[in-house]
Amino acid sequence: MALVERSLLGPGPTNAYPEATAGLAAPMLGHLDPEFLAMLDETGRRLRTVWGTGNLRTLPLSGTGSIGMEAAFVNFVHPGDVVVVAVNGLFGERMCDVASRYGAEVVRVDHTWGQPVDVERVLAAHPSPSIVAAVHAETSTGVRSDIEHLGAALRERDERTLLLADCVTSIGGEQIDLDGWNVDIAYAGTQKCLGVPPGLAPFTVSERAWHRRVEKPTTWYLDLGLIGNYVTGGGSGGRAYHHTAPTAMVASLHAALGRLLEEGIAAAAERHREAGEALQTGLQEMGLDLFAAEGNRLHQLTSVVVPDHVDSADVRKRLLNDYGIEIGGGVGQYANTVWRIGLMGPNAGLDRVELLLGSLRRILGR
Amino acid sequence: MALVERSLLGPGPTNAYPEATAGLAAPMLGHLDPEFLAMLDETGRRLRTVWGTGNLRTLPLSGTGSIGMEAAFVNFVHPGDVVVVAVNGLFGERMCDVASRYGAEVVRVDHTWGQPVDVERVLAAHPSPSIVAAVHAETSTGVRSDIEHLGAALRERDERTLLLADCVTSIGGEQIDLDGWNVDIAYAGTQKCLGVPPGLAPFTVSERAWHRRVEKPTTWYLDLGLIGNYVTGGGSGGRAYHHTAPTAMVASLHAALGRLLEEGIAAAAERHREAGEALQTGLQEMGLDLFAAEGNRLHQLTSVVVPDHVDSADVRKRLLNDYGIEIGGGVGQYANTVWRIGLMGPNAGLDRVELLLGSLRRILGR
Repeated sequence: MALVERSLLGPGPTNAYPEATAGLAAPMLGHLDPEFLAMLDETGRRLRTVWGTGNLRTLPLSGTGSIGMEAAFVNFVHPGDVVVVAVNGLFGERMCDVASRYGAEVVRVDHTWGQPVDVERVLAAHPSPSIVAAVHAETSTGVRSDIEHLGAALRERDERTLLLADCVTSIGGEQIDLDGWNVDIAYAGTQKCLGVPPGLAPFTVSERAWHRRVEKPTTWYLDLGLIGNYVTGGGSGGRAYHHTAPTAMVASLHAALGRLLEEGIAAAAERHREAGEALQTGLQEMGLDLFAAEGNRLHQLTSVVVPDHVDSADVRKRLLNDYGIEIGGGVGQYANTVWRIGLMGPNAGLDRVELLLGSLRRILGR
Repeated sequence: MALVERSLLGPGPTNAYPEATAGLAAPMLGHLDPEFLAMLDETGRRLRTVWGTGNLRTLPLSGTGSIGMEAAFVNFVHPGDVVVVAVNGLFGERMCDVASRYGAEVVRVDHTWGQPVDVERVLAAHPSPSIVAAVHAETSTGVRSDIEHLGAALRERDERTLLLADCVTSIGGEQIDLDGWNVDIAYAGTQKCLGVPPGLAPFTVSERAWHRRVEKPTTWYLDLGLIGNYVTGGGSGGRAYHHTAPTAMVASLHAALGRLLEEGIAAAAERHREAGEALQTGLQEMGLDLFAAEGNRLHQLTSVVVPDHVDSADVRKRLLNDYGIEIGGGVGQYANTVWRIGLMGPNAGLDRVELLLGSLRRILGR
């Protein structure tokens, strides 16, 4: 069966950096091999740099991005805890489901999809919640929220509330300063702006959150107390086997992070910005409307309103079959009225912009 | 930094088949691409063949082997359910921990490590449990248990009890007939005899178990009701996005399963048997004692008693540094008194046997 090449310009996964692919195919190491453990430690250090945090507990969890969300709630929600969730898209919606499974008293703060999180409304939702959770870059709508503002406001109010941020679509595509923003718990995915195949969830937790974790969570696989003994050596230098780490995926992430740091985080963010702005300008020149609120549009993921009388699925099918380009549809009630176009990782380049604009213009006859 | 090549002759991960490595490095596909979905469906069919089951719900879960164990309990243990666990090594031990996190009333049936599961004692432990769980091939001790006998005895007694089997170290290395053995729930890992890097947990569940699953388990990521709508299309032909599947890992597993079926399951089992017997004979000729009970020794994973006055860790270090060979230590109280030597997947060959025997003989001076 012939292999198929795609330009993955949807909401993720994106195409992988060549370094990430080479990492996957490198000779296999055991998960307790000193060479592998050194690579795992360096991966943690690189993630700290990319995320702007000094958190000791910064590691890739062994699952796709969603496992990061699960780990964030199962380890930190005690039954009856009040968790305020800012819902401005699918992933905020999902946080409510996940948190409730662990016994949280969820307080939802609903927003119109496409709008950023309203910090004042989140603050007003509850005077003293255990956790406030929000999505930095909403993959379902293409909107960025101001986590820095949210963190500062929460910290000013009290020292109690933990801030939990979903960074799945922001990591590697823009500058993040978790410590400066007062974020306590964050997770991400590898398959977006990091340019690595899906399969790992970078995760980080602050000291103050760590001391409030659930002692024996209702999960063995994601019990951070157990995982921590493998990844950080439990602070004692010894390492306890937990589960077999996905070694090839870790090698891939390690290599891609090395490339990102070589390029520079600021330079990579600028590259994503330049490509995203060129795309958004081009789409508007074509007469298309953008979906996400102006001023809060992601550069790495652009949401576009499907024009009237255009069959959304048909266009996506033609892009895939005739041009080898994958873009995404919308989510939920916007399934057929929004397209999502990602320029992430290796695809954040002006060549991809022209490839997409040209192909779309041809199909739409504009 | 130079790449390092290892002969991974421990309890797993093993080296990958070349097809598995090529699968990892193949051009990336999106997780909703028709080409990818066809590959995922075929992976399910291939797993059914390897496992000897017609179960519709047969799929790779997005995590390493242990996530299979977690999924097996979180989806099928209702609070208060009696779960009988046959404990004859680390993984039976872990089953008790995992099952108890979901509210099971766990009834342990402890065995001396290195011994197979005693079916009569398991039956006598409780007259009518919801689930009986056992490990087919105990990775911690190198012993095989008779799941067929256990399944027949349980089914003869009543129709109520579900049989749950851990097949992490058996899949691909020996013949398995889940349907013939009356197994309802089984999971595996990719990094043993399938010769794929760690990162996926093949999973299967029978119809009768499916109808008794927990409606809303305390996990979102491993909620089989939700995952099933993506993998099987919910039976209606439509597919609902759940989480982003680890596409590169699925491509790798798909390719390795293709190779296994081309070789033939029986032929692959015979190759593992031949290599394992040659190794065990050679070790005994060297004057070493085997740990697992005679008659129940795995071929794919051999446990050896470390001779008196030999420093177990030092020998493993010399094997690694001087010969590039990884073998495993023992587990728990046997950490320093047992070695575990795996001949799995591509390493199940007579060349690996001689490589290991020669190197070990040199180090031990025998």
